[in-house]
Amino acid sequence: MKSKHSINFEKISSHERYKVLAGSVVPRPIALVTTVGDDGIVNAAPFSFFNALSAHPPLLGFGIQRGVDGTEKDTYKNIVNKGEFTVNIVSDELVEAMNICGIDFESDVDELTMASLSKEPGTLIKTPRIKESKISLECVLHDAISTGERGDLILGKIVMAHIDEDLIEFKNLYIDQIGLDAVGRMGGHGYVRTREYFDLKSINKTTPTPYLQERNWKK
Amino acid sequence: MKSKHSINFEKISSHERYKVLAGSVVPRPIALVTTVGDDGIVNAAPFSFFNALSAHPPLLGFGIQRGVDGTEKDTYKNIVNKGEFTVNIVSDELVEAMNICGIDFESDVDELTMASLSKEPGTLIKTPRIKESKISLECVLHDAISTGERGDLILGKIVMAHIDEDLIEFKNLYIDQIGLDAVGRMGGHGYVRTREYFDLKSINKTTPTPYLQERNWKK
Repeated sequence: MKSKHSINFEKISSHERYKVLAGSVVPRPIALVTTVGDDGIVNAAPFSFFNALSAHPPLLGFGIQRGVDGTEKDTYKNIVNKGEFTVNIVSDELVEAMNICGIDFESDVDELTMASLSKEPGTLIKTPRIKESKISLECVLHDAISTGERGDLILGKIVMAHIDEDLIEFKNLYIDQIGLDAVGRMGGHGYVRTREYFDLKSINKTTPTPYLQERNWKK
Repeated sequence: MKSKHSINFEKISSHERYKVLAGSVVPRPIALVTTVGDDGIVNAAPFSFFNALSAHPPLLGFGIQRGVDGTEKDTYKNIVNKGEFTVNIVSDELVEAMNICGIDFESDVDELTMASLSKEPGTLIKTPRIKESKISLECVLHDAISTGERGDLILGKIVMAHIDEDLIEFKNLYIDQIGLDAVGRMGGHGYVRTREYFDLKSINKTTPTPYLQERNWKK
């Protein structure tokens, strides 16, 4: 067993806490979130403090940080104003476009145009989705929660999913995980592809006891 | 561009909504959460509706589903009672142990013993961490939020991190992402290793315009 380096979070800076957090909680799914501003301009920005957070009801959530001066990001303002947003999943072929959408453009810049991505009108909401994304999830705002200091948490209820038709098995709604080729966020400047996939079935109390006892993780 | 299969979430069952959600939002980080019950027994259970959700303050969160009859899981009860918990990151070598911890044992069963994992006393909190985990994050309860129906969201503030000392660069707190060898959760029975790592630096408004305009994602 390796010795541990222990870090008291009270004794490091805010930026150092972020680095430890982002390097420890991995791999993180990425939401390329589309919203519409009051001027009608479509905004797109990537977030990786993001995940599904509830199945019943079907909620996803993501954290948005305000600037040092408390300024809210366009994505936050647009979601609170319009009550809706769309999460577009980032596959490997969209990574560079996502990186362009991550540039801190002015509010009146349409990131999708900058990244050569196309808009497709929303079905149940007015916010467009990204046509090139293999999966888009239309959401209505469930709640916007301040998490203190500079943090806000957006919770959205999924109302509609759009999935490349060759990725979904219609009968049982299984989604082809290899075909999706989603990319995750790691620490530092890191990302990860999801191609080293493996299956591991859940086990239960009736699984033979020797299976449970023969394991030895004390390497 | 592929045709889309569009699914109105009002028109599918609760279980089908879960399958689409879990197969779309990937790869998900995994928290093997340790808590302590009123009887002093240590509980360990894996959650993948989990992520960092705020940097300032340093918060992570995860969703816990209640049973169909509204019964809360041990993890939820213990966190609300004790006001603390520890997130242990799951590396590839801990995947089978994690799967054992996922078994729906009775409350008085110590999952760590069943999985041949060892406990290490907490430093700033009383909840033990898992010695074999390369990274453990001690958390105090920040908030427990009902998300409606059968969902609860736990938000924890990180107070202490324990990291294998050969994985962290002490000066700038960079964590070796390859050495961590974290595993993510995918849809169905799927998991993914994080070995297909790549770096992609953020770009900004001063990046030469041709870079932005020459992209063509319309495959």
